[in-house]
Amino acid sequence: MFRTDLALEAKEMVHEASGKTTEIEGVKAESQERDGLTITTVDILNENGKKALGKEIGRYITIELPPHSSFCEAYYRLGCIELKKALLSLLDLNKNNEVLVVGLGNREITPDALGSLVLQKLIVTRHLKTLAPDAVEELGTVSGIAPGVMGMTGIETVEIIKGILEKTNPSAIIVIDALASRSTKRIGTTIQLCNTGISPGSGIGNTRKALNSTSLGIPVIAIGVPMVVDAATIAFDAIYESSKPTAEEFLKNIPDTLKNMIVTPKEIDKILVNMSAILSGGINTALHPIPLEELSQYTG
Amino acid sequence: MFRTDLALEAKEMVHEASGKTTEIEGVKAESQERDGLTITTVDILNENGKKALGKEIGRYITIELPPHSSFCEAYYRLGCIELKKALLSLLDLNKNNEVLVVGLGNREITPDALGSLVLQKLIVTRHLKTLAPDAVEELGTVSGIAPGVMGMTGIETVEIIKGILEKTNPSAIIVIDALASRSTKRIGTTIQLCNTGISPGSGIGNTRKALNSTSLGIPVIAIGVPMVVDAATIAFDAIYESSKPTAEEFLKNIPDTLKNMIVTPKEIDKILVNMSAILSGGINTALHPIPLEELSQYTG
Amino acid sequence: MFRTDLALEAKEMVHEASGKTTEIEGVKAESQERDGLTITTVDILNENGKKALGKEIGRYITIELPPHSSFCEAYYRLGCIELKKALLSLLDLNKNNEVLVVGLGNREITPDALGSLVLQKLIVTRHLKTLAPDAVEELGTVSGIAPGVMGMTGIETVEIIKGILEKTNPSAIIVIDALASRSTKRIGTTIQLCNTGISPGSGIGNTRKALNSTSLGIPVIAIGVPMVVDAATIAFDAIYESSKPTAEEFLKNIPDTLKNMIVTPKEIDKILVNMSAILSGGINTALHPIPLEELSQYTG
Amino acid sequence: MFRTDLALEAKEMVHEASGKTTEIEGVKAESQERDGLTITTVDILNENGKKALGKEIGRYITIELPPHSSFCEAYYRLGCIELKKALLSLLDLNKNNEVLVVGLGNREITPDALGSLVLQKLIVTRHLKTLAPDAVEELGTVSGIAPGVMGMTGIETVEIIKGILEKTNPSAIIVIDALASRSTKRIGTTIQLCNTGISPGSGIGNTRKALNSTSLGIPVIAIGVPMVVDAATIAFDAIYESSKPTAEEFLKNIPDTLKNMIVTPKEIDKILVNMSAILSGGINTALHPIPLEELSQYTG
Repeated sequence: MFRTDLALEAKEMVHEASGKTTEIEGVKAESQERDGLTITTVDILNENGKKALGKEIGRYITIELPPHSSFCEAYYRLGCIELKKALLSLLDLNKNNEVLVVGLGNREITPDALGSLVLQKLIVTRHLKTLAPDAVEELGTVSGIAPGVMGMTGIETVEIIKGILEKTNPSAIIVIDALASRSTKRIGTTIQLCNTGISPGSGIGNTRKALNSTSLGIPVIAIGVPMVVDAATIAFDAIYESSKPTAEEFLKNIPDTLKNMIVTPKEIDKILVNMSAILSGGINTALHPIPLEELSQYTG
Repeated sequence: MFRTDLALEAKEMVHEASGKTTEIEGVKAESQERDGLTITTVDILNENGKKALGKEIGRYITIELPPHSSFCEAYYRLGCIELKKALLSLLDLNKNNEVLVVGLGNREITPDALGSLVLQKLIVTRHLKTLAPDAVEELGTVSGIAPGVMGMTGIETVEIIKGILEKTNPSAIIVIDALASRSTKRIGTTIQLCNTGISPGSGIGNTRKALNSTSLGIPVIAIGVPMVVDAATIAFDAIYESSKPTAEEFLKNIPDTLKNMIVTPKEIDKILVNMSAILSGGINTALHPIPLEELSQYTG
Repeated sequence: MFRTDLALEAKEMVHEASGKTTEIEGVKAESQERDGLTITTVDILNENGKKALGKEIGRYITIELPPHSSFCEAYYRLGCIELKKALLSLLDLNKNNEVLVVGLGNREITPDALGSLVLQKLIVTRHLKTLAPDAVEELGTVSGIAPGVMGMTGIETVEIIKGILEKTNPSAIIVIDALASRSTKRIGTTIQLCNTGISPGSGIGNTRKALNSTSLGIPVIAIGVPMVVDAATIAFDAIYESSKPTAEEFLKNIPDTLKNMIVTPKEIDKILVNMSAILSGGINTALHPIPLEELSQYTG
Repeated sequence: MFRTDLALEAKEMVHEASGKTTEIEGVKAESQERDGLTITTVDILNENGKKALGKEIGRYITIELPPHSSFCEAYYRLGCIELKKALLSLLDLNKNNEVLVVGLGNREITPDALGSLVLQKLIVTRHLKTLAPDAVEELGTVSGIAPGVMGMTGIETVEIIKGILEKTNPSAIIVIDALASRSTKRIGTTIQLCNTGISPGSGIGNTRKALNSTSLGIPVIAIGVPMVVDAATIAFDAIYESSKPTAEEFLKNIPDTLKNMIVTPKEIDKILVNMSAILSGGINTALHPIPLEELSQYTG
C-alpha cells in the first residue's frame, strides 16, 4: 500500500481495505466541526494501533480547511485559531520556556519550501531577551532555524539540530515540513499536528533519520501540510478502481518514468503562500501573547 | 485520446493505436542523431496528415536531449547549436529584418514560467538601433515581451500582440511557451519548434486564441518545451496497460480530484533554469551574430 | 537642483531655496491629517506654477504614512482607504467604465519592482465580462499589464500601451511606478497620485516618453511611491549643509562612481511587499465594490 | 574614520590620511597583475600593523576584477581560477580533510544574500561518503550551511556553527559573507580572502561575535565581496573633498535619515548572481578535483 504522512488517512485506508469502519483496537478517533473546519484527534494507544496504522504511538490532530479555491481572510483567521489551540494542547508551555522552531525542506523546490517560508514569518525573540529585554518582556522566548535538506548540507538534519540544542537548551521543539498525502484533495487544505516527531524528507525525497523526543531528548511537536501526491499513487488509484489484482501487480513494477514525479495543483505557489501564513499565524500566537491582528507589526 | 502538444508524440500515438509503424499519408518524418541529440523533422503535408495527427499543416522540428539528470555544459552548448540551426531553417531572416520574441505563460507558476525566463536573457536591440546605433551595428534588430496570461491581464494575448505589432512592424515573431506532453520522460528534455504557431495556455490551463501567421499576418515560429504532464494522463496510461475498455471508461469520467492537477519532476525548478538557458542561448545566437561563449557579455 | 518626482517635495524645495513659505503664484496646496496620515493636495494651476515646481499643470495628492518601521495591519487599512478615496477623486468612473492598470518598472531590480508586484494582486475581470459574466456581474471592468522596461522590450512603453489601447478601448488608465525622492525618509512612506501622467523610468534609470492624456488620448492617473534616492543627492545634501558654493560646484562634476548608484533602506524588500499591498488594496477597492477584508478571496 | 571590511582599503586609507605611501611598520603588501586581474596580498605581521589598519594579524588576499559592466564568461573563468589559487594558498588541505562551508547573511535582503546563493551551488558530498562512497570517491569531503542571521534565528551564528562542528568534526571552515566597502567602485568587483575569520553582519547590519580560529578551534578562511557602501560614507566623502573640518563635524552627528540606508548599484541583482557564480566556481574547484567546465554536471 502507498505511504501517507497523515494518521487520518492511514486510518481511512485501514477501514477501506477491511471494508468496515468498526474500531481498530489501539486507535481512538474523535471529530468535531467548528465554523466549517473539521478537527480530528487520532490517538494511537499501543503497539497494535501502531502496527495497524503504520504510525508511532502518540496523538495526531488534523485540521481540515475548505478547498483552497475558497481560501479567504476568514479561513486564514479560523485556521490560525484552531492551529494555536491544537498546538497548545500538545505543547505544555509555561511563560519561561524556550521553544526552537525548525523549518524543514528545500526552499528551492516550490512544494517543499513550506518550512522555510513559515520560518521567515516567525517572531524570534531569544537574542532580544538578553540584548533588549524590555522590548520583548511580554513575549515568549523563541528561536528558529531552517537548516536545509541533507542533499544541500551533507549533514543529517537531526545532527544539526542536536548541535544547536546543546548550545541553546530549549524546552521543546516545533518542526514544520511539507507532507505527502494519498489524495490530491488534501493538498493545501489539511494541517496535521502530532507529538511523535517527524522524519525529514517524508513529503519530498528520501526519508531521513527521525526528529523526535527519543532522538532529541525533549518534546517534539511536528506540524505538516500535504503539498504533493506521488505520481505512482495517482496511477495506482486509477488502476485499483478497475482491478485490484492489476493494481497489486503495478505496485511491484512501478514504471521508472513515474518515480521521482510529483503531482501538485497548478496553483501550488499560491497554496504555499497561504498555508505558510496560517502556520506562522498559529505558531506566533501560540508562542507569544499577541492578538492575530497585530502580528504584522512584528513580522513586517 | 489525451492531448499532446508534440507532433512527434502525436505520430507515435497514431502508430501505437494502429499497432503498426507504416507511413501515415500526408505525414513525412525524418530523424537524425548528432552528438547524442536526436533531431526529428515531422512535416504535415495535407488535410489527411492534419486530421491524423490533430496538428496544423506545417513543419515541426523536435530536438531530444539526454535525460535531465545528465545535463551539463556540453549539452547546453549542443542544445543551443541545434536550436539555432533549427530556428534558422524555419525563419527566413535577412540582416535588416526585425524579430519580436514573445514569452508566454504565467511567471508565478513554476513550470509555466519558461517563456518569461527566456525573455529575461534575450538580447534586445530594437531601441538601440535608434538611440545608440553604433553600439549595436553588428547585431540583429530584436524586441521582446512577456505579456502574462489572460487570467492576469484580462485581455486575449493575441490582441496584446496585435496591438504591439501595429506599432513596431517586425518581419517575424518567435513565440515561447511551456508545453504539455504525454510522457514524463519528455519533461525538460525535448524542444519543439514549428512554423504553425501556438495557442497560449496549451501547456497549463485553458487554451486561448491561436498566435499564428493567420491571426497575426506575419510568420510565427513557436518554440516549446514540455514541462508538465496532466495527472489524468498518468492515471489513464496506468489503466490502459491493464485494460483498454476500462481506460476508455475512465476517459469519460475523469475524477474531479485529478482535474487541475499537474505532474512534474521534483527538480522542475532546476529544469526550468537549464531549459531557459538553452532556449535563450539558441535564440540569441540565431538572431545576433554573437559566438555562444560571448553571450554573457550581453545578458549579464 | 536635484530632481524629485514628488510635487510636494518640489514645493518644499522652492520654499527652502527662497527662504520663505509664502504662496507661490499658480500653486495651491492644502493639507489634512486623518488617523495619523497626512493627505496633501497640491494644485498646479498655470504656467507660472508649472515653471516654479517643474511639474505639469494638474492635481497631485500625497498620502504620507508613518515611518515604515511602525507598519502594521492598521496602517495597511488606513493606507488602502485613503488611496481609494484619492483615486476616486481623480478618476471620474461610472459602473460601465473599463480601466486599464499599467505596472511600470523592472521586476528584476528590487526597488523598481513595485508596479509588477501591484499587478500581481490586481483583480482583473475584463475577460470574464464575456466568458463568465454572472461571476463578475457586481465587479468593475479591469484589465492590466506590466510590460517591462524599454531595456527589456526594445520598445517605448508608450507604444506598447497605445497598441493595447487600440485593441481594448478602456475609459481611463492607472499607471504605477517606483519614484525617486529627495529624502530617504520618504522611501516607502509616501504615496503620490496625480492626473498628469508619468514618464517611465523616472524613479530608476533613464526617463522615457511620457504616459499621459496627451500621448494616450484618455485620462491617465499615475500612482507612485518613492523607493530610492540618488546617491548623488545624498552627497549633495551633505555638502550643501556645510557650503552652498561647494555644493553648486559638486553638481557640475558629479563623480562617475556615484552615477548609477542608488540609496535604499536595508529593509527595501519588506517595504516593497508592504507598499504593493497598500497600492493593490486601494486600487482593487476603488475599481470594484469589494470590502477590504474580502479582497483575499479574489487575489488569493 | 569610516569602517571598511577590506584590508587593502584600510591600507589605502592610512596612506591617504598620512599623505604618503611609505611602508607601514608591521604591514607587508605585494601586488601582481594577471590577465587583467590584480591580486594583492596584505600581511599584517604584528600589533603595530593591527593597530594601524584596524585588522587582525594575518593574511588578506584581494582579487580585483574589471568593472562589473564588462563581466563576461572569460572573467568568470579567470575569477574562479584566481580564487581557487588564493584559497588553496590559505587552506592547508589534504585529500581526507573535511571542510564546512558557511554562507552568512540574510537571503531576504538582496545585497546580503551572497552567502546563501554560493551555498546553493556548493557541491556537498559529506553524506555521500557514507551513503554512496563510490559515486564521490574522487571528490573532497564537503558540508555546508546557510544558517541565516541572528535576527532570524535568535541565536548567535557562532553558537550554531559550534554546535554543528561538534557533530561533524571538519578540519577547516570557509565562511562567505557580503562586505561593506569605502568605495562604490569595489561593489561586485573585489573579492577578499583572509585567514583571520569574520564577524557576521559586518557588511549589512550590526556586527556579531566573530567566527575565527580562536572562537571555533580550527582554521577559518573568510571570503567576502563588497556589496554595499554606507550612505553616510558617501556623504562623508563628498564633504571631505571640500572641507576636512566639516567632514569631521559631520561624523559626530550623522543624520538619522542616513543611518540604516545603503548604497548599491542599480544592477545589484545581477552582480549578486555573477559574483556568487565566481565564488561557488572557485570554491568547488578548490575543494574537489573537478575541471571548471564540468561543474554544471554537479551543480545543475
